[in-house]
Amino acid sequence: MSSHPSRVLSEFLAGLRYDDIPASVIARTEDLYLDWFASALAGKGARQIDIMERYVEKMGPSSGPSTILVNRKNSSPYFAALVNGASSHLVEQDDVHNGSVFHPAAVVFPAALAAAQDLGKSGADLLVAAVAGYEAGIRIGEFLGRSHYRIFHTTGTAGTLAAAVAVGKLMGFNADQFLHALGSAGTQAAGLWEFLRDAADSKQLHTGKAAADGLLAAYITRDGFTGAQRILEGAQGMAAGMSTDADPARLTDRLGARWATAETSFKFHASCRHTHPAADALQLLMQREGLQHDQIVAVNTRVHQGAIDVLGPVVNPQTVHQAKFSMGTVLGLIAVHQSAGLGEFEQHALQDGKVGAFRDKVRMTLDEEVNTAYPARWLGRVEVDTVDGRHLSAAVDVPKGDPDNTLSRDELEDKAQRLIRFSRAATPQETDRIIAHAWQLHAAPAVNDALNNLFAR
Amino acid sequence: MSSHPSRVLSEFLAGLRYDDIPASVIARTEDLYLDWFASALAGKGARQIDIMERYVEKMGPSSGPSTILVNRKNSSPYFAALVNGASSHLVEQDDVHNGSVFHPAAVVFPAALAAAQDLGKSGADLLVAAVAGYEAGIRIGEFLGRSHYRIFHTTGTAGTLAAAVAVGKLMGFNADQFLHALGSAGTQAAGLWEFLRDAADSKQLHTGKAAADGLLAAYITRDGFTGAQRILEGAQGMAAGMSTDADPARLTDRLGARWATAETSFKFHASCRHTHPAADALQLLMQREGLQHDQIVAVNTRVHQGAIDVLGPVVNPQTVHQAKFSMGTVLGLIAVHQSAGLGEFEQHALQDGKVGAFRDKVRMTLDEEVNTAYPARWLGRVEVDTVDGRHLSAAVDVPKGDPDNTLSRDELEDKAQRLIRFSRAATPQETDRIIAHAWQLHAAPAVNDALNNLFAR
Repeated sequence: MSSHPSRVLSEFLAGLRYDDIPASVIARTEDLYLDWFASALAGKGARQIDIMERYVEKMGPSSGPSTILVNRKNSSPYFAALVNGASSHLVEQDDVHNGSVFHPAAVVFPAALAAAQDLGKSGADLLVAAVAGYEAGIRIGEFLGRSHYRIFHTTGTAGTLAAAVAVGKLMGFNADQFLHALGSAGTQAAGLWEFLRDAADSKQLHTGKAAADGLLAAYITRDGFTGAQRILEGAQGMAAGMSTDADPARLTDRLGARWATAETSFKFHASCRHTHPAADALQLLMQREGLQHDQIVAVNTRVHQGAIDVLGPVVNPQTVHQAKFSMGTVLGLIAVHQSAGLGEFEQHALQDGKVGAFRDKVRMTLDEEVNTAYPARWLGRVEVDTVDGRHLSAAVDVPKGDPDNTLSRDELEDKAQRLIRFSRAATPQETDRIIAHAWQLHAAPAVNDALNNLFAR
Repeated sequence: MSSHPSRVLSEFLAGLRYDDIPASVIARTEDLYLDWFASALAGKGARQIDIMERYVEKMGPSSGPSTILVNRKNSSPYFAALVNGASSHLVEQDDVHNGSVFHPAAVVFPAALAAAQDLGKSGADLLVAAVAGYEAGIRIGEFLGRSHYRIFHTTGTAGTLAAAVAVGKLMGFNADQFLHALGSAGTQAAGLWEFLRDAADSKQLHTGKAAADGLLAAYITRDGFTGAQRILEGAQGMAAGMSTDADPARLTDRLGARWATAETSFKFHASCRHTHPAADALQLLMQREGLQHDQIVAVNTRVHQGAIDVLGPVVNPQTVHQAKFSMGTVLGLIAVHQSAGLGEFEQHALQDGKVGAFRDKVRMTLDEEVNTAYPARWLGRVEVDTVDGRHLSAAVDVPKGDPDNTLSRDELEDKAQRLIRFSRAATPQETDRIIAHAWQLHAAPAVNDALNNLFAR
């Protein structure tokens, strides 16, 4: 039934089994899970998340099967998904799928984890559900296209359907039920970029609501609530109302052969993406040459024009946020502290004289090759002059965290530890247990038991 | 600040006081309240509402300040708004504002009543809040325009903001807070017409979620959560994403001088409003000519484009709900049973062969005059061919229930009694108390106490 791509997608989702999914994709999904878990904890203490917690105390039950990660309280699945969704995008270190410009973890895992706890599901069930949510959500984001993303926050819109799919998979939906759940999720899908202009708090509302509303769609579908059969491609559906370049073929693109889940990128540095290629190249060079920051007298980063446009104006950063757009500061953190993570930014980006001194050694130059390759490829090129008169260079062709240069489990553990340390949402011992839990997720007989063993309460 | 209509609207809302509102508008708001209250009760027992009640039992607290009308249980304001919003549009007898094609009661009163109970407000407070919600929501619906309504269910989208405004008014918001609440509500606004094609249940989801999500926006605003300052008119706001003919001047149209609340129509027939002008015109014609249904061989209804868009897909209704969107079925009930009320739909819309036969005689044609007058005026124009070869026509310029042809309090009481009898949601004695409660709402010191005295529990 090629004229009904939503149904083809639904049939794929209904038939998906753990054994159909390549082991490498399952392992990558555990990677994504740990990365998400730590991101959700990293939002603890932020004003927006405090407000959402108070909202849940007012509106939700004070007990229930599902865990709110930032405060370790339990509530009903809806409210756990709401707060965990809100908190997981707060520090902007959660994963991203480049082609769909969609952050799957922030919406899929909050809904799936809350439902898995409620439904007594295993780690393998949760992994299959997450893969279903990623595969559907990424294709829906690609389907909605660039015209959609210009106005709508795809993570909020496509995310509502992705969350519904993940929960529906945990409920064992057949194709008809997936169609209904997509219908009920799609007709709730929302999220506008207008808030960016005012630096308003809506981003947390978008991810929290997408996770929670998608979960709602699945729960009412299970009880027989019906939805539109072509919410995506129909004449009065999402594409008709919210896109001018939607491509229905993307909804069914190589289902079961292409694993979009494994195309998802991890964010490595806690800075503007335009700084990442040079940061990676400098790190490579310093490790390769065994250099310390004080052995370097000058760094020339060879960049694309977009980097100069965005980063060029930031000469003397005054806030942590500004520092994330300062090429010199980012390279200074890499050189002096070997990392440009959240903690380094908070502690060292502004106050550390060594980082400041290194910042003033860094310049950007437009590079023809780098500029031509962009935006399809983000090439990192640095040239370094040393105190002993050497002129060194290094090149990185795929930024750290992209699928072709993904993070190792050691690097993921390190990133998770840094995220959790940043918000003090868990002790080092608890963090170790969280990491072990993620790496053993495929074997966990019950997600709920596994979660309950993570935290001292 | 004419360049910031959202702010002008917010300043009006912040300044609105009971004494500013004409007594006739207050009285009409009590009429609207009774009509809504009975509509919400009429949804009791429907499958969709049963599912929403089960959802609340699963996700919400089992006690709280706010009343779920269909089952008399209490929960938190969010869940009372959700279920009352879902149930109040179920039988499609709730009010409608023609110019905005917006059903204000179904989203404004569920949110306002739930919050008024929580906040300990008076009947006068509730009436002012409802007027604020109506005035804002109607203008927002008008602002979003016809292009919006072609794809989006305005009651879901504009309704989310209307609900937020009503709750914000109960919370005493200043203009800045109203702007934030509009931002947080607008970025959640959703609802697509695609479900109509499949007779899916989404309409109840739209009204329930609009009421509940608007309430959510107001509660987090009170705690300091910020929203976009131009969610309606901004470059990445609702109009940019969801309309091609938005008119910002409508947002501030004669604020404080024009009372849009009092322009709201009561529904007389139990069907989609788009069928009413033709139903009135056919009823007039048949009474005038003394015609019986079997003397008619063809009916041509001359309609506006919106009627064709919404009703056109419903060719062969399979459910009572779908039948309410079938022009042929509605006219068939009028022709065969002289009424298209709730009872007639339940008993005759699908099973009665005479109604089915009449349905197939009805067609819709786009009429230039009708289309141009819409949505300000809903003109009814029918042409009838009779078995004896006559070609007759009739015109109705103001459908029954419109402000210029409104229902008296006796007619409203009669309609409320019929709605409540239909679902058996209250006894006749309780219904009398509900009616008395509505007519004395302006004098009620505490809405919560008044509500608690209505029902035997």
